[in-house]
Formats: sequence, C-alpha cells, structure tokens
Amino acid sequence: MKTRIGIMGYGNLGRGVELAVAEAPDMELVAVFTRRNPETVKILTEGVPVVQADEAENWKDRIDVLILCGGSATDLPVQTPRYAKLFNVIDSFDTHARIPEHFANVNAAAEEGGRIGIISVGWDPGMFSLNRVYANAVLPDGKDYTFWGKGISQGHSDAIRRIKGVKNAKQYTIPVESALESVRAGENPELTTRQKHTRECFVVLEEGADAAQVENEIKTMPNYFSDYDTTVHFISEEELLRDHAGMAHGGFVFRTGKTGVNKEHSHVIEYSLKLDSNPEFTTSVLVAYARAVKRLYDEGQRGARTVLDIAPAYLSTLSGDELRAHLL
Amino acid sequence: MKTRIGIMGYGNLGRGVELAVAEAPDMELVAVFTRRNPETVKILTEGVPVVQADEAENWKDRIDVLILCGGSATDLPVQTPRYAKLFNVIDSFDTHARIPEHFANVNAAAEEGGRIGIISVGWDPGMFSLNRVYANAVLPDGKDYTFWGKGISQGHSDAIRRIKGVKNAKQYTIPVESALESVRAGENPELTTRQKHTRECFVVLEEGADAAQVENEIKTMPNYFSDYDTTVHFISEEELLRDHAGMAHGGFVFRTGKTGVNKEHSHVIEYSLKLDSNPEFTTSVLVAYARAVKRLYDEGQRGARTVLDIAPAYLSTLSGDELRAHLL
Repeated sequence: MKTRIGIMGYGNLGRGVELAVAEAPDMELVAVFTRRNPETVKILTEGVPVVQADEAENWKDRIDVLILCGGSATDLPVQTPRYAKLFNVIDSFDTHARIPEHFANVNAAAEEGGRIGIISVGWDPGMFSLNRVYANAVLPDGKDYTFWGKGISQGHSDAIRRIKGVKNAKQYTIPVESALESVRAGENPELTTRQKHTRECFVVLEEGADAAQVENEIKTMPNYFSDYDTTVHFISEEELLRDHAGMAHGGFVFRTGKTGVNKEHSHVIEYSLKLDSNPEFTTSVLVAYARAVKRLYDEGQRGARTVLDIAPAYLSTLSGDELRAHLL
Repeated sequence: MKTRIGIMGYGNLGRGVELAVAEAPDMELVAVFTRRNPETVKILTEGVPVVQADEAENWKDRIDVLILCGGSATDLPVQTPRYAKLFNVIDSFDTHARIPEHFANVNAAAEEGGRIGIISVGWDPGMFSLNRVYANAVLPDGKDYTFWGKGISQGHSDAIRRIKGVKNAKQYTIPVESALESVRAGENPELTTRQKHTRECFVVLEEGADAAQVENEIKTMPNYFSDYDTTVHFISEEELLRDHAGMAHGGFVFRTGKTGVNKEHSHVIEYSLKLDSNPEFTTSVLVAYARAVKRLYDEGQRGARTVLDIAPAYLSTLSGDELRAHLL
C-alpha cells in the first residue's frame, strides 16, 4: 500500500511536493489543503481534491504524512504544532535561531497526539546540517565554513522593497570566489562577513524616486547590507520580471581539519549544491523524509525529530540488501 | 565513563585509530592487539598494553568496542565475524563486491554473540556511500558519478610490482579534470572508463631490466591499465621513497538530477574529499562510528549494521539540544 500524502498550502513549495510525490513509486497524493477558496486553486494532479484547510481534521485517518508547505515566519510556528496533534507531519522550518523552540512545541504536540513530526527539512537546514554534523564528528579538530549562493535571498529582497521609492527588487547573495578557493586549499582563513559574500541588487524605482538616495539607503542598511560589498543596479520592471524571476540557489559547506602525531595532515571536506529551483529541491528533500516519517511511525516512534535523528536508509525506496549491494 | 576502545592490528590504520581516540574526550584506549611479538611493537600512548592477538578473548569484558584494523583481502573476512562473537566491532572492509557476503557473516556472528558490528566504515565505502544514498533519495531522476584521486592505489601499485623486472612501484589514480568540469556543469556526460581517470606510474627497475618491455606490460595489463591512458615514469628507488611515500588521497561523488513539470530544472550535488592522509581520515571515520556502536549496543541493538543504518546524531559528542542549536 502506498504512503498517502497530504499537502498543506499550495505555493511554490506545495507545487514542488506535488511534483516530487508524482516521482515516488511508493507514494500517492490524496489531498491538497488551502486557506484560499478551493475552487480557485488549480493543481497539476488529476482526480485529487483541493480542500479547505479548516476541513483537514476530517482527513486525519486518510493521510499518512501531512507535508506542511507554509512559510517559516508566521505559518509553520503555528501550523506544525497544530497539525502534529492530528497527523504525522513534516516541515521545512528554516529560521535557525528559533529551531529549539519550534522543536519543543512540535515534540509536545506530536507526543500528545501519538504522532511523529520531522522539522527543518530542506537544504539549509537539512542537507547542509547533515554535512556539518558528519564532518564535525569525523574531524573534531577543525573549522567550519558555510557559503550561500549564488541565489536570491527573499529576506534581503523584501528589505529593499520596504524602502520608500522602490517598486520592486531582487537581491542575489554571491559567495566570494577567492574565499572559496582559500578554504578549498586548506588555508583555514579567518573570514569577515564582507570577505565571504557579496550582495547584488536589481531595483525597480517608483516614478520620480531618487536613485542616489535609494542606493545609499540600501548600502547602509544595518545587518542586511552595511557589512557587505553591495552593488545596486536600477532596471525596468520588464527587465526584472524577464531576467530575475528564476529561483536558482545553492551553496557550499566545508570542514577543514587536521590529524597526525603533530597535526601535520590537513583534510578538506566539501559539499556543494547548485540548484536551478530552490523550492523544487527543498521539496525533493521533504518528500524523501516523508518516507522516513511513515517508516518511523510504523515502528512506533513518536514525537519530534530532525534530519540528524534519521538513518539514511530510511529515505530510500531500496531495501537494505539492495543498498548494500549497489550504493554502499 | 569513557568508551573503552581496543585496536586489533597496529599498522597505518591501527596507528590512525590510536591518534583519533586520543582526540575523543569520551573514549580511552585500553589495549592494542597484534599478531607480532608484542615486545617488538611500540605504540604512541603511554601506559596502554600491547597484547598478543591470541589473548584478545580474555579482554572481552574490558572493551566496549574493538576496532579491526586489518586488510580487506584476507584479514577482515576472517577477523570481523570471529571477533563479533565476543566484542562489539567495527571495520573498514572495502571490497565493494563482497560486502553482502561479509555483512551476512558478521550479522550471524554478532547475533550469536549478542553484539553489534558496523562494517565498511571509512570514506569509500563510508562517507561516499552516505552521499550516494542521500542524493539518490532526494533526486530519484538522476545520474551518479564517483571519481577517485588524486591518490595512490595500493592494488594497482601491487599489480605493477608483480611484473618481472620491477623492483618497486607506486601508481596514482587521477580524475580527468575536463570530466569533472562537465559533470559539475550539469551536462550529464556518458563517460567511458578512459574518460574518467588517468593512471600515472612511478617504477623502479631491477638492474638489467628492459624498460620498454615493462612499460608495455603495464600499459596492456587487462582490467588494471589497458582501459586507461597510462603514463609510466622510471625513477630511482631513492626518488620513489623520497617523493612518493605520501598517503594523500581523495575523490568526488556527484549526483545530477532533474525536477519540474517538464524536467526543466537541473540540480548538481557534489561531495568531495581532499585528504593528506588516507589512513588517518579513514580511522577518523571509524572512531566517530565507534561512538555509535557503543550507543546502539547500550540501546539493545544487536547484529550487523552499515553507515546507512546509523542516524548522524549518534556520531557526535554533542547532545540533541546542542546539535539543534548549533549545527542544524
């Protein structure tokens, strides 16, 4: 019997989950829940109902894993604990600083409901976290580096859009190539914020706005831009929509460490992602972990988990024998 | 109480384990076992006994994890099942084709003895296997590539040494840079054996040997060299010992895959290692997994496992709370 998947929220992530579930031979999509009027939401899969989010509770015995596709700022802190009382759930909560609090809330709810919930699944947190933990365990005497990009940062784009006179904007986070090369060469550099990433902004002005003033406001904005070398390009809205609508992203996780009687041997571990679609990759990870949710639940596990608590074999459609024969 | 570690076999791997255990705040080395005369074996750690391998059985209640540091060709197929009846064990068995058989033997022995054994721990199999499994689960519609090097291949060096007229030899396996670049660019190339790696040989001849004939024998040797572009350099024994005694190695694991309504989005996952010391990195992985062996045993798990069966958190000295706060 296939694992029955529900999707809560149908934006970029919801659509990505739908596509990834269609690729999974052991899963079937049974419902998409939305806070919008269901009649206005058109999904890709034929024959699957779009249901008002308020009615989700009625589906609790017909869904094995509910994949939560809301945002981390306001949706998931409420939704994941709420639905963990009723469903096995999984989310991509990515506000690093609030993970401990979110974990505690989901854990309490899942234990109360006798369910399992995996939080913070995606690539960072997610695949990058796995690599940080493995590499730290293997090279205890070492140094970690994480770089992001090239890709659009939603938070930084939003910050620019809030400036008076800005009609629209996209901001790319770009890792500094010479910093990557230094880390890769095992030089263990101490890197400032400015030395790790640059920021490139594409901005559409409101009519009559003062370009010089907008540029200055961007470049001096604390936290977001003032610690970086920032470039600002003013373009037309047409250009922005045509050239900067992509959702490519990626990044690099390094750990460099030393071993030997006199620490004479250096080692460099590098993990990198180059993604044409940030949401589709994130949801591909979510769906692989949805497989683990079902298996752990069937084994009797309850409560909250993260990717760090899940053995890799749980993500695969292959049996232990097949994995050992072909991928080990 | 610290996890009590025993080392079976004191060559490059045994010494590497000793160094890695010294770095682990939660472990202590309690004995080194050798098939040699113990009086001839000098170890680095003060106060730890070197014991004849035949006496290992007497230590079974004083050791939490016995780390097996023999070779995969003849030692481990015998030793790991033998000691898995008495100890929790871990090995770095790396003959990929024989893993299923080795797993079955260790599993039967460990179940009989009420112990746990993790096999094939290192970087390939090991860290590379983890990356293959994660990446395959996340990108089911994709293609795998593994490259090794630059580093010395023991098997290929041995094959050259068996040629009549060869006194000594070292062989480097080198990934082809243009192949790496093509994979990294998401071009999904179909690569022949010759297109993926080149082989570079440094050979010391016996006095009076025919260099041209040796070179021809190397380059036409089936399986080992005939499918590769091979370069042969004749050097003095002094040069070989001076310039080619290092144990650097490394490699790359890629998975490239597609997502999207029309598979319009490409993704590239790359994992790479650049290691100054192949045995010291391998043993750093072994010691991290020794931590998992002890924890799984204490939880009541029995039988054989591989890295694919172990959740990453089991490798870390940090608690779940600490991992979620700092590394997730």
